[in-house]
Amino acid sequence: MPLEEKALIARLRRQAAGSSPAVVEGIGDDCAVLRPRRGCELLVTTDCTLENVHFRRAWSSPEEIGHRSLVRGLSDIAAMGGEARAAFLSLALPARLQQRWVDGFLRGLLKLAREHGVVLAGGDIAQSPGGVLADIVVVGEAPAGKAVRRSGARPGDRVYVTGELGLGAAAVVARHAGRNVPIPVPQPRLRAGRALRNIASAMIDVSDGLSTDLAHICEESGVGAVIAAGRVPAPAGIDFALHGGDDYELLFTARGKVPARVAGVRVSEIGRVVRARGLWVEARGRKLPLHPGGWEHFAR
Amino acid sequence: MPLEEKALIARLRRQAAGSSPAVVEGIGDDCAVLRPRRGCELLVTTDCTLENVHFRRAWSSPEEIGHRSLVRGLSDIAAMGGEARAAFLSLALPARLQQRWVDGFLRGLLKLAREHGVVLAGGDIAQSPGGVLADIVVVGEAPAGKAVRRSGARPGDRVYVTGELGLGAAAVVARHAGRNVPIPVPQPRLRAGRALRNIASAMIDVSDGLSTDLAHICEESGVGAVIAAGRVPAPAGIDFALHGGDDYELLFTARGKVPARVAGVRVSEIGRVVRARGLWVEARGRKLPLHPGGWEHFAR
Repeated sequence: MPLEEKALIARLRRQAAGSSPAVVEGIGDDCAVLRPRRGCELLVTTDCTLENVHFRRAWSSPEEIGHRSLVRGLSDIAAMGGEARAAFLSLALPARLQQRWVDGFLRGLLKLAREHGVVLAGGDIAQSPGGVLADIVVVGEAPAGKAVRRSGARPGDRVYVTGELGLGAAAVVARHAGRNVPIPVPQPRLRAGRALRNIASAMIDVSDGLSTDLAHICEESGVGAVIAAGRVPAPAGIDFALHGGDDYELLFTARGKVPARVAGVRVSEIGRVVRARGLWVEARGRKLPLHPGGWEHFAR
Repeated sequence: MPLEEKALIARLRRQAAGSSPAVVEGIGDDCAVLRPRRGCELLVTTDCTLENVHFRRAWSSPEEIGHRSLVRGLSDIAAMGGEARAAFLSLALPARLQQRWVDGFLRGLLKLAREHGVVLAGGDIAQSPGGVLADIVVVGEAPAGKAVRRSGARPGDRVYVTGELGLGAAAVVARHAGRNVPIPVPQPRLRAGRALRNIASAMIDVSDGLSTDLAHICEESGVGAVIAAGRVPAPAGIDFALHGGDDYELLFTARGKVPARVAGVRVSEIGRVVRARGLWVEARGRKLPLHPGGWEHFAR
Protein backbone atom coordinates (compact mmCIF):
# COMPACT_ATOMS: atom_id res chain seq x y z
CA MET A 1 0.00 0.00 0.00
CA PRO A 2 1.42 3.42 -0.87
CA LEU A 3 1.14 6.19 1.72
CA GLU A 4 -1.97 8.34 1.83
CA GLU A 5 -1.83 11.32 -0.53
CA LYS A 6 -1.22 13.86 2.24
CA ALA A 7 1.63 11.89 3.85
CA LEU A 8 3.21 11.24 0.45
CA ILE A 9 3.10 14.93 -0.47
CA ALA A 10 4.58 15.90 2.91
CA ARG A 11 7.41 13.43 2.38
CA LEU A 12 8.02 14.65 -1.18
CA ARG A 13 8.07 18.24 0.04
CA ARG A 14 10.85 17.37 2.50
CA GLN A 15 12.84 15.31 0.02
CA ALA A 16 12.41 17.83 -2.79
CA ALA A 17 13.57 20.74 -0.65
CA GLY A 18 16.40 21.90 -2.86
CA SER A 19 16.97 25.52 -3.63
CA SER A 20 17.36 27.25 -6.92
CA PRO A 21 17.23 30.96 -7.72
CA ALA A 22 14.79 29.98 -10.49
CA VAL A 23 12.22 28.49 -8.08
CA VAL A 24 10.67 31.11 -5.75
CA GLU A 25 8.03 28.73 -4.38
CA GLY A 26 7.95 24.95 -4.81
CA ILE A 27 5.53 22.36 -3.41
CA GLY A 28 2.91 23.72 -0.99
CA ASP A 29 0.77 26.35 -2.73
CA ASP A 30 -1.81 26.34 -5.52
CA CYS A 31 0.96 26.88 -8.05
CA ALA A 32 4.73 26.80 -8.07
CA VAL A 33 6.26 30.24 -8.64
CA LEU A 34 9.25 30.39 -11.00
CA ARG A 35 11.41 33.40 -11.76
CA PRO A 36 12.57 33.39 -15.39
CA ARG A 37 16.04 34.78 -16.05
CA ARG A 38 15.99 38.09 -17.88
CA GLY A 39 16.28 37.72 -21.64
CA CYS A 40 15.41 34.04 -21.54
CA GLU A 41 12.56 32.14 -23.11
CA LEU A 42 10.89 29.33 -21.27
CA LEU A 43 10.89 25.72 -22.45
CA VAL A 44 8.13 23.35 -21.32
CA THR A 45 7.85 19.64 -22.07
CA THR A 46 5.58 16.86 -20.78
CA ASP A 47 6.22 13.11 -20.96
CA CYS A 48 3.92 10.37 -19.79
CA THR A 49 5.62 7.13 -18.64
CA LEU A 50 3.36 4.09 -18.31
CA GLU A 51 3.98 0.70 -16.74
CA ASN A 52 4.15 -2.13 -19.32
CA VAL A 53 4.40 0.43 -22.13
CA HIS A 54 7.60 2.31 -21.21
CA PHE A 55 8.91 0.04 -18.48
CA ARG A 56 8.35 -3.24 -16.67
CA ARG A 57 8.73 -3.46 -12.94
CA ALA A 58 10.40 -6.88 -13.34
CA TRP A 59 13.09 -5.59 -15.69
CA SER A 60 14.36 -2.45 -13.94
CA SER A 61 14.79 -1.27 -10.36
CA PRO A 62 12.40 1.44 -9.11
CA GLU A 63 15.40 3.82 -8.96
CA GLU A 64 16.12 3.20 -12.66
CA ILE A 65 12.46 3.71 -13.58
CA GLY A 66 12.34 7.02 -11.67
CA HIS A 67 15.56 8.08 -13.37
CA ARG A 68 14.26 7.14 -16.84
CA SER A 69 10.94 8.97 -16.31
CA LEU A 70 12.82 12.20 -15.69
CA VAL A 71 15.39 11.57 -18.46
CA ARG A 72 12.59 11.75 -21.03
CA GLY A 73 11.78 15.34 -20.01
CA LEU A 74 15.38 16.49 -19.47
CA SER A 75 16.29 15.09 -22.88
CA ASP A 76 13.65 17.30 -24.53
CA ILE A 77 15.20 20.36 -22.85
CA ALA A 78 18.64 19.18 -24.05
CA ALA A 79 17.30 18.88 -27.62
CA MET A 80 16.41 22.60 -27.57
CA GLY A 81 19.84 23.54 -26.18
CA GLY A 82 18.26 24.68 -22.91
CA GLU A 83 18.97 24.50 -19.19
CA ALA A 84 16.53 22.51 -17.06
CA ARG A 85 15.17 24.36 -14.00
CA ALA A 86 12.14 22.69 -12.44
CA ALA A 87 10.22 19.43 -12.68
CA PHE A 88 6.60 18.54 -11.85
CA LEU A 89 5.49 14.98 -11.23
CA SER A 90 1.96 13.60 -11.52
CA LEU A 91 1.96 10.08 -10.18
CA ALA A 92 -0.93 7.60 -10.41
CA LEU A 93 -0.24 4.55 -8.23
CA PRO A 94 -2.10 1.23 -7.96
CA ALA A 95 -3.59 0.71 -4.47
CA ARG A 96 -1.64 -2.51 -3.95
CA LEU A 97 1.79 -1.02 -4.78
CA GLN A 98 4.38 -1.13 -1.99
CA GLN A 99 5.55 2.21 -0.59
CA ARG A 100 9.11 0.84 -0.85
CA TRP A 101 8.76 0.84 -4.64
CA VAL A 102 7.50 4.45 -4.60
CA ASP A 103 10.43 5.48 -2.38
CA GLY A 104 12.90 3.89 -4.81
CA PHE A 105 11.24 5.56 -7.78
CA LEU A 106 11.45 8.98 -6.11
CA ARG A 107 15.06 8.37 -5.02
CA GLY A 108 16.12 7.69 -8.61
CA LEU A 109 14.20 10.67 -9.92
CA LEU A 110 15.41 13.14 -7.28
CA LYS A 111 19.06 12.02 -7.58
CA LEU A 112 19.06 12.79 -11.30
CA ALA A 113 17.22 16.08 -10.69
CA ARG A 114 19.89 17.19 -8.20
CA GLU A 115 22.70 16.26 -10.61
CA HIS A 116 21.28 18.76 -13.11
CA GLY A 117 20.22 21.50 -10.67
CA VAL A 118 16.53 20.76 -11.21
CA VAL A 119 14.05 21.34 -8.35
CA LEU A 120 10.93 19.17 -8.01
CA ALA A 121 8.50 22.05 -7.65
CA GLY A 122 5.08 20.41 -7.70
CA GLY A 123 2.84 17.67 -8.94
CA ASP A 124 -0.18 15.62 -8.15
CA ILE A 125 -0.92 12.15 -6.72
CA ALA A 126 -3.81 9.87 -7.61
CA GLN A 127 -4.79 6.24 -7.35
CA SER A 128 -4.38 4.34 -10.61
CA PRO A 129 -6.93 1.73 -11.71
CA GLY A 130 -4.20 0.15 -13.90
CA GLY A 131 -0.43 0.22 -13.52
CA VAL A 132 1.96 2.97 -12.44
CA LEU A 133 1.69 6.16 -14.47
CA ALA A 134 4.17 9.02 -14.13
CA ASP A 135 3.57 12.21 -16.05
CA ILE A 136 6.58 14.50 -15.87
CA VAL A 137 6.78 18.15 -16.82
CA VAL A 138 10.15 19.82 -17.10
CA VAL A 139 10.51 23.59 -17.33
CA GLY A 140 13.76 25.00 -18.71
CA GLU A 141 15.23 28.16 -20.16
CA ALA A 142 17.19 29.30 -23.17
CA PRO A 143 18.32 32.78 -24.22
CA ALA A 144 15.53 34.39 -26.28
CA GLY A 145 15.60 33.22 -29.89
CA LYS A 146 18.41 30.72 -29.25
CA ALA A 147 16.42 27.52 -28.59
CA VAL A 148 17.24 25.01 -31.36
CA ARG A 149 14.09 23.96 -33.28
CA ARG A 150 13.39 20.95 -35.44
CA SER A 151 12.67 23.22 -38.37
CA GLY A 152 16.09 24.73 -39.14
CA ALA A 153 17.68 22.01 -41.34
CA ARG A 154 18.66 23.15 -44.86
CA PRO A 155 19.88 21.22 -47.94
CA GLY A 156 23.66 20.83 -47.70
CA ASP A 157 23.70 20.57 -43.89
CA ARG A 158 25.32 17.45 -42.45
CA VAL A 159 23.50 15.09 -40.05
CA TYR A 160 25.13 14.19 -36.72
CA VAL A 161 24.34 12.13 -33.67
CA THR A 162 25.89 11.96 -30.18
CA GLY A 163 26.92 8.71 -28.47
CA GLU A 164 25.71 5.30 -29.66
CA LEU A 165 22.30 4.11 -30.83
CA GLY A 166 20.27 0.94 -30.44
CA LEU A 167 21.56 -0.56 -27.18
CA GLY A 168 18.30 0.02 -25.31
CA ALA A 169 16.10 -1.49 -28.04
CA ALA A 170 18.45 -4.49 -28.36
CA ALA A 171 18.23 -5.13 -24.60
CA VAL A 172 14.41 -4.96 -24.68
CA VAL A 173 14.28 -7.48 -27.53
CA ALA A 174 16.70 -9.78 -25.65
CA ARG A 175 14.48 -9.52 -22.55
CA HIS A 176 11.40 -10.42 -24.58
CA ALA A 177 13.35 -13.46 -25.81
CA GLY A 178 13.94 -14.47 -22.19
CA ARG A 179 17.59 -13.40 -21.84
CA ASN A 180 18.39 -11.67 -18.56
CA VAL A 181 20.39 -8.68 -19.87
CA PRO A 182 20.31 -5.30 -18.10
CA ILE A 183 18.23 -2.49 -19.67
CA PRO A 184 20.68 0.42 -20.18
CA VAL A 185 20.15 3.57 -18.11
CA PRO A 186 20.34 6.61 -20.42
CA GLN A 187 21.71 10.01 -19.41
CA PRO A 188 20.19 13.28 -20.64
CA ARG A 189 22.62 15.15 -22.93
CA LEU A 190 22.02 18.55 -21.34
CA ARG A 191 25.63 19.77 -21.46
CA ALA A 192 26.09 18.60 -25.04
CA GLY A 193 22.79 20.25 -26.01
CA ARG A 194 23.90 23.60 -24.63
CA ALA A 195 27.29 23.30 -26.31
CA LEU A 196 25.49 22.69 -29.63
CA ARG A 197 23.19 25.72 -29.26
CA ASN A 198 25.24 27.87 -31.64
CA ILE A 199 26.32 24.96 -33.86
CA ALA A 200 23.17 22.95 -34.68
CA SER A 201 20.73 24.21 -37.34
CA ALA A 202 18.04 21.71 -36.15
CA MET A 203 18.00 19.27 -33.24
CA ILE A 204 15.84 16.53 -31.69
CA ASP A 205 16.46 13.79 -29.14
CA VAL A 206 16.33 10.17 -30.28
CA SER A 207 13.38 8.88 -28.27
CA ASP A 208 11.31 7.08 -30.94
CA GLY A 209 14.26 5.85 -33.03
CA LEU A 210 16.63 7.51 -35.50
CA SER A 211 14.41 6.91 -38.56
CA THR A 212 11.30 8.38 -36.87
CA ASP A 213 13.08 11.30 -35.22
CA LEU A 214 15.02 12.24 -38.36
CA ALA A 215 11.68 12.18 -40.22
CA HIS A 216 10.39 14.75 -37.69
CA ILE A 217 13.33 17.08 -38.44
CA CYS A 218 12.82 16.62 -42.21
CA GLU A 219 9.04 17.22 -42.04
CA GLU A 220 9.36 20.36 -39.91
CA SER A 221 12.24 21.68 -42.05
CA GLY A 222 10.69 20.75 -45.42
CA VAL A 223 13.75 18.78 -46.53
CA GLY A 224 14.98 15.17 -46.90
CA ALA A 225 18.04 13.28 -45.67
CA VAL A 226 20.40 10.50 -46.73
CA ILE A 227 22.01 8.39 -43.98
CA ALA A 228 25.27 6.47 -44.51
CA ALA A 229 24.63 3.14 -42.73
CA GLY A 230 28.33 2.51 -42.18
CA ARG A 231 28.76 5.74 -40.25
CA VAL A 232 25.96 5.21 -37.72
CA PRO A 233 27.39 4.34 -34.26
CA ALA A 234 25.54 1.02 -33.96
CA PRO A 235 27.19 -1.41 -31.53
CA ALA A 236 24.05 -3.63 -31.48
CA GLY A 237 23.59 -3.62 -35.27
CA ILE A 238 22.21 -1.14 -37.79
CA ASP A 239 18.53 -2.19 -37.44
CA PHE A 240 18.46 -1.42 -33.75
CA ALA A 241 20.26 1.87 -34.38
CA LEU A 242 17.89 2.95 -37.17
CA HIS A 243 14.59 1.86 -35.65
CA GLY A 244 15.20 1.35 -31.93
CA GLY A 245 14.22 4.01 -29.43
CA ASP A 246 14.85 5.33 -25.95
CA ASP A 247 18.44 6.26 -26.78
CA TYR A 248 18.10 9.89 -25.63
CA GLU A 249 21.07 10.86 -27.77
CA LEU A 250 20.95 14.13 -29.72
CA LEU A 251 20.32 14.02 -33.46
CA PHE A 252 21.17 17.29 -35.18
CA THR A 253 22.05 19.01 -38.43
CA ALA A 254 24.75 21.65 -38.89
CA ARG A 255 26.31 23.73 -41.62
CA GLY A 256 29.72 24.56 -40.19
CA LYS A 257 32.42 22.47 -38.60
CA VAL A 258 31.37 20.21 -35.71
CA PRO A 259 33.96 18.95 -33.20
CA ALA A 260 34.43 15.17 -32.84
CA ARG A 261 33.52 15.43 -29.14
CA VAL A 262 31.08 17.85 -27.50
CA ALA A 263 30.92 18.18 -23.70
CA GLY A 264 32.76 14.88 -23.36
CA VAL A 265 30.40 13.00 -25.72
CA ARG A 266 31.43 11.54 -29.07
CA VAL A 267 29.76 13.07 -32.14
CA SER A 268 29.39 11.09 -35.40
CA GLU A 269 28.63 12.53 -38.83
CA ILE A 270 26.09 10.09 -40.28
CA GLY A 271 24.56 11.72 -43.36
CA ARG A 272 23.47 14.81 -45.23
CA VAL A 273 20.37 16.94 -45.72
CA VAL A 274 18.98 16.99 -49.29
CA ARG A 275 16.38 19.07 -51.10
CA ALA A 276 14.16 16.08 -52.09
CA ARG A 277 11.61 15.23 -49.38
CA GLY A 278 12.12 11.73 -48.00
CA LEU A 279 14.62 9.56 -46.13
CA TRP A 280 17.19 7.23 -47.64
CA VAL A 281 19.90 4.99 -46.29
CA GLU A 282 23.11 4.20 -48.21
CA ALA A 283 24.65 0.78 -47.55
CA ARG A 284 27.22 -1.12 -49.64
CA GLY A 285 26.90 1.30 -52.53
CA ARG A 286 23.07 1.08 -52.72
CA LYS A 287 20.62 3.81 -51.75
CA LEU A 288 17.34 2.52 -50.33
CA PRO A 289 14.27 4.35 -48.99
CA LEU A 290 14.29 4.50 -45.16
CA HIS A 291 10.83 4.16 -43.66
CA PRO A 292 10.26 5.68 -40.24
CA GLY A 293 9.92 2.59 -38.06
CA GLY A 294 10.68 3.60 -34.54
CA TRP A 295 10.00 1.75 -31.40
CA GLU A 296 6.52 0.56 -32.44
CA HIS A 297 8.24 -1.67 -34.99
CA PHE A 298 9.47 -3.85 -32.15
CA ALA A 299 6.36 -3.59 -30.05
CA ARG A 300 4.12 -5.31 -32.60
CA MET B 1 -10.98 3.05 -31.03
CA PRO B 2 -9.22 6.39 -30.61
CA LEU B 3 -7.06 7.63 -33.47
CA GLU B 4 -3.41 6.61 -33.66
CA GLU B 5 -1.11 8.86 -31.64
CA LYS B 6 0.32 10.60 -34.71
CA ALA B 7 -3.09 11.37 -36.25
CA LEU B 8 -4.43 12.55 -32.89
CA ILE B 9 -1.47 14.91 -32.38
CA ALA B 10 -1.84 16.28 -35.93
CA ARG B 11 -5.53 16.94 -35.28
CA LEU B 12 -4.81 18.57 -31.92
CA ARG B 13 -2.15 20.75 -33.52
CA ARG B 14 -4.71 22.05 -36.03
CA GLN B 15 -7.44 22.56 -33.42
CA ALA B 16 -5.10 24.15 -30.89
CA ALA B 17 -3.71 26.64 -33.41
CA GLY B 18 -4.51 29.78 -31.49
CA SER B 19 -2.07 32.58 -31.15
CA SER B 20 -0.80 34.34 -28.09
CA PRO B 21 2.16 36.66 -27.70
CA ALA B 22 3.14 34.48 -24.71
CA VAL B 23 3.50 31.30 -26.80
CA VAL B 24 6.36 31.51 -29.32
CA GLU B 25 6.16 27.83 -30.29
CA GLY B 26 3.35 25.42 -29.43
CA ILE B 27 2.82 21.78 -30.41
CA GLY B 28 5.39 20.36 -32.84
CA ASP B 29 8.87 20.58 -31.30
CA ASP B 30 10.66 18.89 -28.39
CA CYS B 31 9.46 21.65 -26.08
CA ALA B 32 6.99 24.49 -26.25
CA VAL B 33 8.68 27.90 -26.15
CA LEU B 34 7.02 30.56 -23.98
CA ARG B 35 7.99 34.21 -23.68
CA PRO B 36 7.43 35.51 -20.12
CA ARG B 37 6.34 39.10 -19.82
CA ARG B 38 9.02 41.36 -18.37
CA GLY B 39 8.71 41.77 -14.60
CA CYS B 40 6.44 38.77 -14.27
CA GLU B 41 6.88 35.55 -12.35
CA LEU B 42 5.71 32.29 -13.75
CA LEU B 43 2.99 30.15 -12.18
CA VAL B 44 2.87 26.41 -12.89
CA THR B 45 0.23 23.94 -11.73
CA THR B 46 -0.52 20.30 -12.56
CA ASP B 47 -3.79 18.44 -12.00
CA CYS B 48 -4.49 14.84 -12.74
CA THR B 49 -8.11 13.95 -13.62
CA LEU B 50 -9.04 10.25 -13.49
CA GLU B 51 -12.11 8.42 -14.70
CA ASN B 52 -14.26 7.05 -11.83
CA VAL B 53 -12.31 9.18 -9.34
CA HIS B 54 -12.96 12.71 -10.64
CA PHE B 55 -15.68 11.97 -13.18
CA ARG B 56 -17.94 9.27 -14.58
CA ARG B 57 -18.55 9.02 -18.28
CA ALA B 58 -22.21 8.17 -17.58
CA TRP B 59 -22.81 11.33 -15.53
CA SER B 60 -21.31 14.07 -17.69
CA SER B 61 -20.86 14.75 -21.39
CA PRO B 62 -17.32 14.48 -22.81
CA GLU B 63 -17.41 18.27 -23.39
CA GLU B 64 -18.15 18.85 -19.68
CA ILE B 65 -15.37 16.47 -18.64
CA GLY B 66 -12.84 18.24 -20.88
CA HIS B 67 -14.02 21.58 -19.48
CA ARG B 68 -13.71 20.38 -15.87
CA SER B 69 -10.23 18.92 -16.41
CA LEU B 70 -8.98 22.34 -17.49
CA VAL B 71 -10.97 24.21 -14.82
CA ARG B 72 -8.91 22.48 -12.14
CA GLY B 73 -5.69 24.01 -13.49
CA LEU B 74 -7.13 27.43 -14.36
CA SER B 75 -8.62 27.63 -10.87
CA ASP B 76 -5.14 27.20 -9.33
CA ILE B 77 -3.87 30.12 -11.42
CA ALA B 78 -6.93 32.16 -10.30
CA ALA B 79 -6.12 31.34 -6.65
CA MET B 80 -2.69 33.00 -7.05
CA GLY B 81 -4.23 36.06 -8.74
CA GLY B 82 -2.50 35.20 -12.01
CA GLU B 83 -3.28 35.20 -15.72
CA ALA B 84 -3.35 31.83 -17.48
CA ARG B 85 -1.23 31.62 -20.64
CA ALA B 86 -0.66 28.05 -21.83
CA ALA B 87 -1.92 24.56 -21.12
CA PHE B 88 -0.35 21.14 -21.67
CA LEU B 89 -2.40 17.96 -21.84
CA SER B 90 -1.20 14.41 -21.21
CA LEU B 91 -3.97 12.04 -22.15
CA ALA B 92 -4.01 8.30 -21.49
CA LEU B 93 -6.90 6.65 -23.35
CA PRO B 94 -8.28 3.10 -23.16
CA ALA B 95 -7.90 1.23 -26.49
CA ARG B 96 -11.65 0.64 -26.75
CA LEU B 97 -12.65 4.31 -26.27
CA GLN B 98 -14.54 5.92 -29.17
CA GLN B 99 -12.78 8.76 -30.99
CA ARG B 100 -16.09 10.66 -30.78
CA TRP B 101 -15.68 10.81 -27.00
CA VAL B 102 -12.11 12.11 -27.36
CA ASP B 103 -13.30 14.76 -29.83
CA GLY B 104 -15.98 15.93 -27.37
CA PHE B 105 -13.48 16.05 -24.52
CA LEU B 106 -11.09 18.19 -26.57
CA ARG B 107 -13.91 20.43 -27.80
CA GLY B 108 -14.93 21.23 -24.19
CA LEU B 109 -11.34 21.78 -23.12
CA LEU B 110 -10.36 23.98 -26.08
CA LYS B 111 -13.53 26.10 -25.86
CA LEU B 112 -12.74 27.00 -22.23
CA ALA B 113 -9.07 27.60 -23.12
CA ARG B 114 -10.05 30.06 -25.87
CA GLU B 115 -12.43 31.90 -23.53
CA HIS B 116 -9.49 32.67 -21.25
CA GLY B 117 -6.83 33.32 -23.91
CA VAL B 118 -5.01 30.08 -23.08
CA VAL B 119 -3.13 28.23 -25.84
CA LEU B 120 -2.83 24.42 -25.77
CA ALA B 121 0.93 24.34 -26.32
CA GLY B 122 1.83 20.69 -25.92
CA GLY B 123 1.22 17.38 -24.27
CA ASP B 124 1.54 13.67 -24.67
CA ILE B 125 -0.72 10.76 -25.66
CA ALA B 126 -0.56 7.21 -24.37
CA GLN B 127 -2.73 4.12 -24.17
CA SER B 128 -4.29 3.61 -20.74
CA PRO B 129 -4.62 0.13 -19.24
CA GLY B 130 -7.46 1.45 -17.03
CA GLY B 131 -9.82 4.37 -17.60
CA VAL B 132 -9.30 7.81 -19.11
CA LEU B 133 -6.58 9.86 -17.45
CA ALA B 134 -5.98 13.53 -18.23
CA ASP B 135 -3.05 15.29 -16.65
CA ILE B 136 -3.21 19.02 -17.23
CA VAL B 137 -0.50 21.58 -16.71
CA VAL B 138 -1.35 25.26 -16.80
CA VAL B 139 1.32 27.94 -17.01
CA GLY B 140 0.40 31.47 -15.97
CA GLU B 141 1.96 34.76 -14.97
CA ALA B 142 1.74 37.32 -12.21
CA PRO B 143 3.74 40.51 -11.62
CA ALA B 144 6.88 39.62 -9.60
CA GLY B 145 6.10 39.34 -5.88
CA LYS B 146 2.35 39.84 -6.40
CA ALA B 147 1.13 36.23 -6.58
CA VAL B 148 -1.17 35.58 -3.61
CA ARG B 149 0.12 32.74 -1.41
CA ARG B 150 -1.65 30.54 1.10
CA SER B 151 0.71 31.77 3.79
CA GLY B 152 -0.28 35.43 4.21
CA ALA B 153 -3.28 35.18 6.60
CA ARG B 154 -2.85 37.06 9.92
CA PRO B 155 -4.97 37.15 13.11
CA GLY B 156 -7.71 39.75 12.68
CA ASP B 157 -8.09 39.18 8.93
CA ARG B 158 -11.61 38.29 7.76
CA VAL B 159 -12.38 35.14 5.76
CA TYR B 160 -14.27 35.43 2.45
CA VAL B 161 -15.51 33.17 -0.31
CA THR B 162 -16.78 33.85 -3.84
CA GLY B 163 -20.03 32.40 -5.23
CA GLU B 164 -21.81 29.46 -3.60
CA LEU B 165 -20.49 26.23 -2.11
CA GLY B 166 -21.65 22.62 -2.02
CA LEU B 167 -23.78 22.30 -5.16
CA GLY B 168 -21.34 19.95 -6.88
CA ALA B 169 -20.97 17.63 -3.90
CA ALA B 170 -24.75 17.56 -3.37
CA ALA B 171 -25.28 16.56 -7.01
CA VAL B 172 -22.70 13.76 -6.76
CA VAL B 173 -24.40 12.38 -3.63
CA ALA B 174 -27.80 12.57 -5.38
CA ARG B 175 -26.35 10.68 -8.37
CA HIS B 176 -24.95 7.98 -6.08
CA ALA B 177 -28.47 7.70 -4.63
CA GLY B 178 -29.81 7.10 -8.13
CA ARG B 179 -31.35 10.52 -8.80
CA ASN B 180 -30.71 11.85 -12.31
CA VAL B 181 -29.63 15.44 -11.47
CA PRO B 182 -27.07 17.31 -13.57
CA ILE B 183 -23.53 17.67 -12.21
CA PRO B 184 -22.83 21.45 -12.18
CA VAL B 185 -20.16 22.77 -14.54
CA PRO B 186 -17.86 25.11 -12.59
CA GLN B 187 -16.16 28.20 -14.04
CA PRO B 188 -12.62 29.23 -13.12
CA ARG B 189 -12.62 32.53 -11.19
CA LEU B 190 -9.71 34.03 -13.11
CA ARG B 191 -11.06 37.58 -13.34
CA ALA B 192 -12.07 37.61 -9.67
CA GLY B 193 -8.65 36.23 -8.70
CA ARG B 194 -6.86 39.04 -10.53
CA ALA B 195 -9.16 41.65 -9.00
CA LEU B 196 -8.32 40.25 -5.55
CA ARG B 197 -4.53 40.36 -6.12
CA ASN B 198 -4.09 43.56 -4.12
CA ILE B 199 -6.91 42.80 -1.66
CA ALA B 200 -6.40 39.21 -0.44
CA SER B 201 -3.74 38.43 2.20
CA ALA B 202 -3.99 34.68 1.46
CA MET B 203 -5.98 32.76 -1.16
CA ILE B 204 -6.77 29.20 -2.28
CA ASP B 205 -9.39 27.65 -4.54
CA VAL B 206 -12.04 25.40 -3.00
CA SER B 207 -11.24 22.09 -4.68
CA ASP B 208 -11.19 19.69 -1.71
CA GLY B 209 -13.91 21.41 0.33
CA LEU B 210 -14.03 24.56 2.48
CA SER B 211 -12.91 22.83 5.71
CA THR B 212 -9.89 21.18 4.04
CA ASP B 213 -8.86 24.20 1.97
CA LEU B 214 -9.23 26.64 4.88
CA ALA B 215 -7.04 24.25 6.91
CA HIS B 216 -4.36 24.59 4.19
CA ILE B 217 -4.41 28.40 4.51
CA CYS B 218 -4.26 28.15 8.33
CA GLU B 219 -1.38 25.62 8.31
CA GLU B 220 0.71 27.60 5.83
CA SER B 221 -0.01 30.88 7.65
CA GLY B 222 0.43 29.50 11.20
CA VAL B 223 -3.00 30.74 12.34
CA GLY B 224 -6.52 29.44 13.02
CA ALA B 225 -10.00 30.45 11.84
CA VAL B 226 -13.59 30.63 13.06
CA ILE B 227 -16.37 30.21 10.47
CA ALA B 228 -19.91 31.55 11.02
CA ALA B 229 -22.13 28.76 9.67
CA GLY B 230 -25.02 31.15 8.98
CA ARG B 231 -22.91 33.29 6.68
CA VAL B 232 -21.63 30.53 4.40
CA PRO B 233 -23.40 30.66 0.98
CA ALA B 234 -24.77 27.13 1.16
CA PRO B 235 -27.83 26.58 -1.08
CA ALA B 236 -27.51 22.77 -0.70
CA GLY B 237 -27.02 22.85 3.08
CA ILE B 238 -24.11 23.64 5.38
CA ASP B 239 -22.58 20.12 5.36
CA PHE B 240 -22.13 20.11 1.61
CA ALA B 241 -20.74 23.65 1.78
CA LEU B 242 -18.24 22.83 4.55
CA HIS B 243 -17.05 19.44 3.36
CA GLY B 244 -18.02 19.15 -0.31
CA GLY B 245 -15.47 19.81 -3.02
CA ASP B 246 -15.02 20.73 -6.67
CA ASP B 247 -16.57 24.16 -6.15
CA TYR B 248 -13.62 26.06 -7.67
CA GLU B 249 -14.68 29.20 -5.83
CA LEU B 250 -11.99 31.40 -4.25
CA LEU B 251 -11.49 31.26 -0.49
CA PHE B 252 -9.43 34.18 0.80
CA THR B 253 -8.52 36.31 3.78
CA ALA B 254 -8.21 40.10 3.80
CA ARG B 255 -7.45 42.94 6.18
CA GLY B 256 -9.10 45.91 4.49
CA LYS B 257 -12.49 46.48 2.97
CA VAL B 258 -13.70 43.92 0.42
CA PRO B 259 -16.44 44.79 -2.08
CA ALA B 260 -19.67 42.72 -2.04
CA ARG B 261 -19.06 41.78 -5.69
CA VAL B 262 -15.73 41.26 -7.43
CA ALA B 263 -15.54 40.92 -11.22
CA GLY B 264 -19.28 40.19 -11.30
CA VAL B 265 -19.09 37.48 -8.63
CA ARG B 266 -20.72 37.72 -5.19
CA VAL B 267 -18.32 37.75 -2.23
CA SER B 268 -19.44 36.58 1.25
CA GLU B 269 -17.67 37.31 4.53
CA ILE B 270 -17.86 33.97 6.37
CA GLY B 271 -15.49 34.20 9.34
CA ARG B 272 -12.32 35.52 10.92
CA VAL B 273 -8.68 34.55 11.34
CA VAL B 274 -7.56 33.92 14.95
CA ARG B 275 -4.21 33.44 16.68
CA ALA B 276 -5.05 29.98 18.13
CA ARG B 277 -4.23 27.18 15.67
CA GLY B 278 -7.30 25.21 14.68
CA LEU B 279 -10.64 25.53 12.90
CA TRP B 280 -14.00 26.22 14.51
CA VAL B 281 -17.53 26.72 13.28
CA GLU B 282 -20.10 28.91 15.08
CA ALA B 283 -23.73 27.87 14.73
CA ARG B 284 -26.75 28.84 16.83
CA GLY B 285 -24.54 30.45 19.47
CA ARG B 286 -22.25 27.42 19.88
CA LYS B 287 -18.63 27.15 18.76
CA LEU B 288 -17.58 23.65 17.68
CA PRO B 289 -14.29 22.32 16.33
CA LEU B 290 -14.37 21.98 12.53
CA HIS B 291 -12.49 18.94 11.27
CA PRO B 292 -11.13 19.08 7.74
CA GLY B 293 -13.36 16.60 5.96
CA GLY B 294 -13.31 17.45 2.32
CA TRP B 295 -14.42 15.38 -0.55
CA GLU B 296 -13.05 12.12 0.88
CA HIS B 297 -15.74 12.36 3.54
CA PHE B 298 -18.31 11.56 0.90
CA ALA B 299 -16.23 9.06 -0.99
CA ARG B 300 -16.05 6.63 1.93
